[in-house]
Amino acid sequence: MKVNVIVKPKEAVLDPQGNAVRDAMRHLGMPEVKSVRIGKFMEIDVEGDDVDLEKKLHGLCRDLLSNPVIEDYELRKKS
Amino acid sequence: MKVNVIVKPKEAVLDPQGNAVRDAMRHLGMPEVKSVRIGKFMEIDVEGDDVDLEKKLHGLCRDLLSNPVIEDYELRKKS
Repeated sequence: MKVNVIVKPKEAVLDPQGNAVRDAMRHLGMPEVKSVRIGKFMEIDVEGDDVDLEKKLHGLCRDLLSNPVIEDYELRKKS
Repeated sequence: MKVNVIVKPKEAVLDPQGNAVRDAMRHLGMPEVKSVRIGKFMEIDVEGDDVDLEKKLHGLCRDLLSNPVIEDYELRKKS
């Protein structure tokens, strides 16, 4: 099974990296850019395809792949 | 208009960060993990919504947000 995991900063958390990119985009000819927020994208390939695996994946998303204090994660199953 | 940009390493390019995460996941109770590849996820909010803006966005994805030598980008329009 293939899953995509997206980890992004929570709404209430400042994102200085995103702000730097926003300013750079405005500077390079796109003053229309209102905000940029930057997170991580992970493509994970897992052997097998059952509910138990998905539960374990959610556990690792919480414990290893994201920092739940400042980040949210989203797990999308692809196949 | 809101767009999501995903930047990920090309298939042929080694991803040591992804390999480190893969090994950590295997170690933490998921030996089923075959591979992990890590990229960036950007949520961009832009004022307006026309074809010209989208073209400009593609230009900046190529020139600023990704390194076309080793990375591919994907631009997904949300609304």
